[in-house]
Amino acid sequence: MLPPSVCRVRDYRPLAEARLDPPVRSYLQEGDDGDNVRALEAARLIPRPLCSVGGGHTRIELFGQRLGHPILLAPIAYQMLFHPGGEKATALASAAQSGQMVISSLASQSLPAIAHAATSEGGPRPWFQLYWQENRQRTLGLLRRAEANCSVIVFTVDAPIKRATLHLPDGIRAVNLEPGRASSTARSASGTVFDGWMAQAPTWDDLCWLREQSDRPLLVKGLLHADDAARALAIGCDGIVVSNHGQRILSRSPAALHALPAIVQRVAGRVPVLFDSGIRSGEDVFIALAHGATAVLLGRPYVWGLAASGALGVAHVLRLLRDELEMTMALAGCASLADIDRRQLVS
Amino acid sequence: MLPPSVCRVRDYRPLAEARLDPPVRSYLQEGDDGDNVRALEAARLIPRPLCSVGGGHTRIELFGQRLGHPILLAPIAYQMLFHPGGEKATALASAAQSGQMVISSLASQSLPAIAHAATSEGGPRPWFQLYWQENRQRTLGLLRRAEANCSVIVFTVDAPIKRATLHLPDGIRAVNLEPGRASSTARSASGTVFDGWMAQAPTWDDLCWLREQSDRPLLVKGLLHADDAARALAIGCDGIVVSNHGQRILSRSPAALHALPAIVQRVAGRVPVLFDSGIRSGEDVFIALAHGATAVLLGRPYVWGLAASGALGVAHVLRLLRDELEMTMALAGCASLADIDRRQLVS
Amino acid sequence: MLPPSVCRVRDYRPLAEARLDPPVRSYLQEGDDGDNVRALEAARLIPRPLCSVGGGHTRIELFGQRLGHPILLAPIAYQMLFHPGGEKATALASAAQSGQMVISSLASQSLPAIAHAATSEGGPRPWFQLYWQENRQRTLGLLRRAEANCSVIVFTVDAPIKRATLHLPDGIRAVNLEPGRASSTARSASGTVFDGWMAQAPTWDDLCWLREQSDRPLLVKGLLHADDAARALAIGCDGIVVSNHGQRILSRSPAALHALPAIVQRVAGRVPVLFDSGIRSGEDVFIALAHGATAVLLGRPYVWGLAASGALGVAHVLRLLRDELEMTMALAGCASLADIDRRQLVS
Amino acid sequence: MLPPSVCRVRDYRPLAEARLDPPVRSYLQEGDDGDNVRALEAARLIPRPLCSVGGGHTRIELFGQRLGHPILLAPIAYQMLFHPGGEKATALASAAQSGQMVISSLASQSLPAIAHAATSEGGPRPWFQLYWQENRQRTLGLLRRAEANCSVIVFTVDAPIKRATLHLPDGIRAVNLEPGRASSTARSASGTVFDGWMAQAPTWDDLCWLREQSDRPLLVKGLLHADDAARALAIGCDGIVVSNHGQRILSRSPAALHALPAIVQRVAGRVPVLFDSGIRSGEDVFIALAHGATAVLLGRPYVWGLAASGALGVAHVLRLLRDELEMTMALAGCASLADIDRRQLVS
Repeated sequence: MLPPSVCRVRDYRPLAEARLDPPVRSYLQEGDDGDNVRALEAARLIPRPLCSVGGGHTRIELFGQRLGHPILLAPIAYQMLFHPGGEKATALASAAQSGQMVISSLASQSLPAIAHAATSEGGPRPWFQLYWQENRQRTLGLLRRAEANCSVIVFTVDAPIKRATLHLPDGIRAVNLEPGRASSTARSASGTVFDGWMAQAPTWDDLCWLREQSDRPLLVKGLLHADDAARALAIGCDGIVVSNHGQRILSRSPAALHALPAIVQRVAGRVPVLFDSGIRSGEDVFIALAHGATAVLLGRPYVWGLAASGALGVAHVLRLLRDELEMTMALAGCASLADIDRRQLVS
Repeated sequence: MLPPSVCRVRDYRPLAEARLDPPVRSYLQEGDDGDNVRALEAARLIPRPLCSVGGGHTRIELFGQRLGHPILLAPIAYQMLFHPGGEKATALASAAQSGQMVISSLASQSLPAIAHAATSEGGPRPWFQLYWQENRQRTLGLLRRAEANCSVIVFTVDAPIKRATLHLPDGIRAVNLEPGRASSTARSASGTVFDGWMAQAPTWDDLCWLREQSDRPLLVKGLLHADDAARALAIGCDGIVVSNHGQRILSRSPAALHALPAIVQRVAGRVPVLFDSGIRSGEDVFIALAHGATAVLLGRPYVWGLAASGALGVAHVLRLLRDELEMTMALAGCASLADIDRRQLVS
Repeated sequence: MLPPSVCRVRDYRPLAEARLDPPVRSYLQEGDDGDNVRALEAARLIPRPLCSVGGGHTRIELFGQRLGHPILLAPIAYQMLFHPGGEKATALASAAQSGQMVISSLASQSLPAIAHAATSEGGPRPWFQLYWQENRQRTLGLLRRAEANCSVIVFTVDAPIKRATLHLPDGIRAVNLEPGRASSTARSASGTVFDGWMAQAPTWDDLCWLREQSDRPLLVKGLLHADDAARALAIGCDGIVVSNHGQRILSRSPAALHALPAIVQRVAGRVPVLFDSGIRSGEDVFIALAHGATAVLLGRPYVWGLAASGALGVAHVLRLLRDELEMTMALAGCASLADIDRRQLVS
Repeated sequence: MLPPSVCRVRDYRPLAEARLDPPVRSYLQEGDDGDNVRALEAARLIPRPLCSVGGGHTRIELFGQRLGHPILLAPIAYQMLFHPGGEKATALASAAQSGQMVISSLASQSLPAIAHAATSEGGPRPWFQLYWQENRQRTLGLLRRAEANCSVIVFTVDAPIKRATLHLPDGIRAVNLEPGRASSTARSASGTVFDGWMAQAPTWDDLCWLREQSDRPLLVKGLLHADDAARALAIGCDGIVVSNHGQRILSRSPAALHALPAIVQRVAGRVPVLFDSGIRSGEDVFIALAHGATAVLLGRPYVWGLAASGALGVAHVLRLLRDELEMTMALAGCASLADIDRRQLVS
């Protein structure tokens, strides 16, 4: 049942927090995204009344998939921590809302099960977020399992170092990884950085290698420098996800929105540029697109919905954002996503 | 009886809020105008002492009407929610203070009654704010009723979408609209935006049509882009009201004051440019005029006066603003509204 | 007896407020000077260690008077409201600290008595702040009384309008004004501005006339525009006091510090430019001088000292500011006031 | 024993404050460094994933000493106030972490004892911070005692004036100074500045003289102006420490980070430029180095560790900062300190 009194996505946050154990709540809110949220909130849009926007819509085609809107669900680890429905609930909600999800390498349910939930309604296969698995052999194994169930590979490169901030409860683990070894993203901070974590972190050479291993669309997630975006394209990647990982990795990184325009300019339309970090409303989605993003990834807010109401909550969060995006488009005089550009921004 | 201890208009706010039921209070404060108020408060004026301002005044002629000051009362819906005197109290106070009011399409009292209250003291007929009524036929009906009682038409174009945030109590309704159908501005948010609300929203074509239907002065309210102001003038409109609707419609819209100079520059004196949104004091009126506005519309503050003390409160609010405007003019060395310009602003 | 635990001037504020009746306290703090204080606090100074500043001092000669430091006491009305010692206590303290005070037109003690307190220790005669007295005849009368007791005339031009915010208690009144008529600065806000207050406010013509009536040094206090400073000099005035009257008159006026450099540049050293508004510490004095001021007027802070401890408190406030000014000069490598300029400011 | 729950250096602050007497706590926090901390926090770094940083390290050679990292411990007076282990505990921790400390002129333990603690593990001799001792003779005496035990001389020039804010408890005193005279840095504020403190403050001539007295590396600490840095180099100094003394001396001094680039540019690599003031994390160390610093001095944070847990706390603070510095370097794609420059900063 949907909670009454939810008008905006942020209304789900207290509902979610009331249901989560304190360590899970801390894990979810860690790194709190403040710069990203503030950068989006500071942007201003000029309304353009009296435009004819009849027949307008938010549809988009991405990597051959037709989606109802440009709001993808970002890879979030261990979703059974937030609701027993876990990743399957998220997949179901996303498909029901004509959207798409990106399954985390650290998903708590099996890839076939999640993919089945996503496609049972006729939607496309979900995307998969790939973390480097210490070496090429192990990474290749995970890639092959992903290819068997997913359509697009999103290679996350910005999190070579991650403190293990949560002790996982019994029964919740990264079931799609090879057992018996910790993921490189869950090591503790003891020991040296350069010869510990970084020795197992992927490099540009590894990205070249990875590109050769798969003919699936391959996106690189976690770039903030235009030079890096250009290099990824030269290697043959099919898209860029501009993200600062919700500020969880490098606390002093710039707001993702501030890094977006330079990357969009360098990419110059050759591949889609997705935006991740700080989206809280449909107005935010519009603003990211006006800065040049092709689509966005939504993170914490859908987990609020998941924690509060399972699949129904995730679907409701998506519905709210879609409605807000449509209203913002209508007020700004944009009948389709292609109409959204910098001219709607107050410079 | 006037409340003691009111020195500034803002002193009426707590008095008003103490008298209003919580839902009405929320409705009044919704969207809270923060950016507009802050933009006005941030402006700085250079005092010019020792100027000769004897015989100074705040008089202005607008569309053939001689007014004592440039502070019009903005269209606010359902004023019987705030005081049993309703729109008639507002009209009476405005006329007593040599001012002018703009009656809302959603007025809770009949146009003839309000117009009679306004003119019984010898003042000019009030202005009328026109909301689009879903189609041309219904809109024309409302226009004709307005023309029978009002002098100037202010067509509000920035609110095609509006959540119904208030359940109206028995006996309060938009008595001047055709019964049996909801106004397009009071529909709920369910359903799609583009094929729902926006299908009934007016377009530039509708504005052309409207212009042809009436020989009354026709203003367009709710423009923030200079291109739109130019287009309205090309269509033959007689004035522009720069407004972001008190930020109630698009929360990320720019402060109205920031949009004003570009529109003033484009209009280049061909028609009056009125300013709406965030006025709280006579200093604010001066600042809007220094940025190029011909006159201003006052919104929430007069409703505070209405709720606290009826017609007397509205008149007192206007008196306070007039005095503050005169003092600001005197301190800035301006003997008439025509003397106010950007030179008084700290650049 | 000096209060213990006072290390900075601001420590006197709570001590003063604890001793004042609420209406007097409100009157003192009215208009609260926030912009002025923040502008001074935002300035940054580059320390210049290792300079030879032996024999350094803060002495200054102003209009033939040798003062120990550039911190004058601003004209504050009705000082018996704050302490029974009144203006005489202030005069005594100022003289004891080798300083100078400016007596208000609205002083609560007689000019001869205050002047006697100031000169009994061998100091120069105090200065007098002149408010326009509705017309030339009455103003001339006050000027002549001032000339009999004071050395320099400071004509305040920025306060033609002033709400009477305080009901004076029995026995406290402006004893140096002609009885039976209210000062133009104490009229109520009822009635119109232009034909009421402003009809009795001085104009540039009146300043020309005033200049001809007296051969005493004549300063104009309350200018913020460089054009006005130039005009005052053309009329023959001997100095300018840049001031926004502690923001009591026009709440949207710029911070006095922000207006200072343009005036200093225009005056170009022909006459002294004094700075008033927001001084709270010796660092502030240094900053005003680095922006081009010749000397400063101190307002509220000395009244805190007066209210807390009478003449001793005023003297202590001056001593604290002198010490802070000396320390700031020493750290900035300045051995005399003439060494202070913009090079010490972080641009 | 190390306190649980310390993940960041700042977590030590409440632990330290809980153990210190109020006057010692105030003394430690005095001047609170806000501008310095905010300047560092406002800087933004662009992550550069996928770089090969294998074999990376933080090693540095300074004045012939090989250190494991660029984080030196700043001179802090009277360390027995914070922990009975005093300066010896600090020296031990610094040596154990392959670092270096700068012993204060006001150390509470003898130079030979501190130096022995530092070198007992095979580390280099500590550095010594020299305060001017009123005249050349007394200063020379202290210099010679320092040379007997220390390797590098850091001459602090920015604190000629210092209020005695703390009454030292029995048994704690500056044991390395000549007895019977107060240090010039501990005099009270009474008396005049120019003929009191400043008469005993060092000048550029004294710095020339000092340079001639010693063949040890001589750094000047407390410069913020590029002209002063150039002059120190012309005199033959071997390094500059950019510092505003944690804002304890001149409250309006600029943030040290803002002064750093101009000095780095003027010094142009001829000598090391060290940075002091506001460092709270390894990210801050990286940011200072990206602005051109060769190394940094850490102040209050290691005293928090000392107060909370003695030598072990200091070592832990250093370990945390080293780890954070390594992680920041790895995320920014820098394998050695030489790779850190402005290109990692968001301009």
